[in-house]
Amino acid sequence: VAVLGIHQEPEKAAFYVPEYLHDEGFDVWKQGAHAGPPLAVIVSTDAHYSIARTLRIMGWGDRGVIAAPIDAHHRLTPEAAETALGQAGDRRVIGIVAAAGSTATGAFDPLHELADVAERHGLWLHVDAAHGGGVALSETQRSKLRGIERADSVVWDAHKLLMMPALVTAVIYRREAHAYEAFAQQASYLFADATPDQSWWDLGQRTLECTKRAMALELWSALRTQGEAWFGEVVDRQAELARQLAAKVAAAPDFELALMPESNIVCFRHLGSVTPGELDAHNRMLRKRVIEDGTFYIVGTQLPGGFYLRSTLMNPLTEEVDLDALLDYLRELSLPCRP
Amino acid sequence: VAVLGIHQEPEKAAFYVPEYLHDEGFDVWKQGAHAGPPLAVIVSTDAHYSIARTLRIMGWGDRGVIAAPIDAHHRLTPEAAETALGQAGDRRVIGIVAAAGSTATGAFDPLHELADVAERHGLWLHVDAAHGGGVALSETQRSKLRGIERADSVVWDAHKLLMMPALVTAVIYRREAHAYEAFAQQASYLFADATPDQSWWDLGQRTLECTKRAMALELWSALRTQGEAWFGEVVDRQAELARQLAAKVAAAPDFELALMPESNIVCFRHLGSVTPGELDAHNRMLRKRVIEDGTFYIVGTQLPGGFYLRSTLMNPLTEEVDLDALLDYLRELSLPCRP
Repeated sequence: VAVLGIHQEPEKAAFYVPEYLHDEGFDVWKQGAHAGPPLAVIVSTDAHYSIARTLRIMGWGDRGVIAAPIDAHHRLTPEAAETALGQAGDRRVIGIVAAAGSTATGAFDPLHELADVAERHGLWLHVDAAHGGGVALSETQRSKLRGIERADSVVWDAHKLLMMPALVTAVIYRREAHAYEAFAQQASYLFADATPDQSWWDLGQRTLECTKRAMALELWSALRTQGEAWFGEVVDRQAELARQLAAKVAAAPDFELALMPESNIVCFRHLGSVTPGELDAHNRMLRKRVIEDGTFYIVGTQLPGGFYLRSTLMNPLTEEVDLDALLDYLRELSLPCRP
Repeated sequence: VAVLGIHQEPEKAAFYVPEYLHDEGFDVWKQGAHAGPPLAVIVSTDAHYSIARTLRIMGWGDRGVIAAPIDAHHRLTPEAAETALGQAGDRRVIGIVAAAGSTATGAFDPLHELADVAERHGLWLHVDAAHGGGVALSETQRSKLRGIERADSVVWDAHKLLMMPALVTAVIYRREAHAYEAFAQQASYLFADATPDQSWWDLGQRTLECTKRAMALELWSALRTQGEAWFGEVVDRQAELARQLAAKVAAAPDFELALMPESNIVCFRHLGSVTPGELDAHNRMLRKRVIEDGTFYIVGTQLPGGFYLRSTLMNPLTEEVDLDALLDYLRELSLPCRP
């Protein structure tokens, strides 16, 4: 198998050149990009920026991304993926990146249907579950990940939904051997001469970094101490708070909800008394004031409909009263003459 | 400036396509590798494996490395770099990677002379000071880094010589703007619209990772608490222990020293009563037994002369008596029938 691999955050994206490229005699790892055609993957327009950054690092350029538009639920549909595939031109498409859930809005892509597309065209399916993978521990939310078992690779951050300190992150491969092939290489002072079976303990062969913190220990300890069910409750509480915030926003005439949250991310904007043309600038200004003031923290995100404020419910000490306080605070900050 | 950047461990190597490539209208970050010629950098045959891994990730393949042979002191000489440059063929050489000191032996390359070569040919000079950068804090050893101020980029690990917990590592650029250009990109929910002057606080623009531990805090706190001079003493003590171990090895008829240590790394092998042809296998076996037994820890390294054991003096609790114990222990392990 010819292999292209780069992991980010520290291991956000992992791509493989599928076997058919190897069958054509093209091994980009050894021979370099020039030995074959330009490569590309299909991602949604909402995909995390690290995907595009990763592809540019690998020498794929701007054209390494074929961006498929998201639907009304901010999801990458199989139809959009098929359409994007048709736009490849001279590029060899080798994979699809699905989100579960997306960083921008927390939307979960239809993984089974995207896996069908990947299977039909012999593409690698990578699922960016960095944010949403933690719902696997929730009885009620687990179904959002249906189909993830068909992914070739999955990225998952335990520091998102599972209260771990940053970073605790993993790249998980469906086929174990792929973990060993991504960085196939020799380094005599580090790597013993051993087959994968014999060197499962040698993480240096399977990670981008050489020296690496034993981040799995934190998660393992927490799971052993608290149990999986406890983490499921944490995940459910975060989603419940997000639903509460979304409901408050939807009910408020001076706010607008971007979409009903699927997980713990709520995107919304303040309408105030500004004209539609001023909405983006108004909400950017609000975001800036929030950061400068420091009472709350909030980020912004660019969605097809404009610039939105984005609140991620992660702190276990957050209560419903804090959500009301946030909205009142934003109203106050938006006043032209603040006290 | 067209930019190619990848950082490892987490930031081991940083390369830029110099301005002259941009002047030719080739921007590999945006246009991808296919828009220009195959690229390469000159590294010594002793360079850390992460350099070659980084180049392969960037799609440069095996040919991305032009390996220059090291001299008798295990250093990359300007003559070897010039010769390597002549072997480029159809590849565009964009940089030289020097070591201070090298991971394999701790050798310090002649940085001023390599900077002259880089200047003469318009190449980026990257110094891998991951291991040896800490000698900057030692009055007596600082001179080994002469010329490092002419490097375009330097990598430095504080978890090597300065007793920090792994990882505490930095990529340092001579020209500040380069730090902002490596990953030039948009991500609306993260990056404010700001010029570099205005967003010095926004590390996401300048690091490979998105979420990142505030590793500088550990080093800053330690330097504030203990002072630079104290760390200089730590570095000097490590070098003194290495000299002691090297002297003991050189004086022992049943051991062979690979080279006089320039810093805290000592490479040597056990001769025992084996034939020259059996030396590599014998020392590999010794290394394996050390690891399995667990009383000591040692690594191995492949040098031009064969396979050597490699001891890195880093633990502040190590005493001279431990060095004698290590050699006696290796003698005992090498006996055919161990007790």
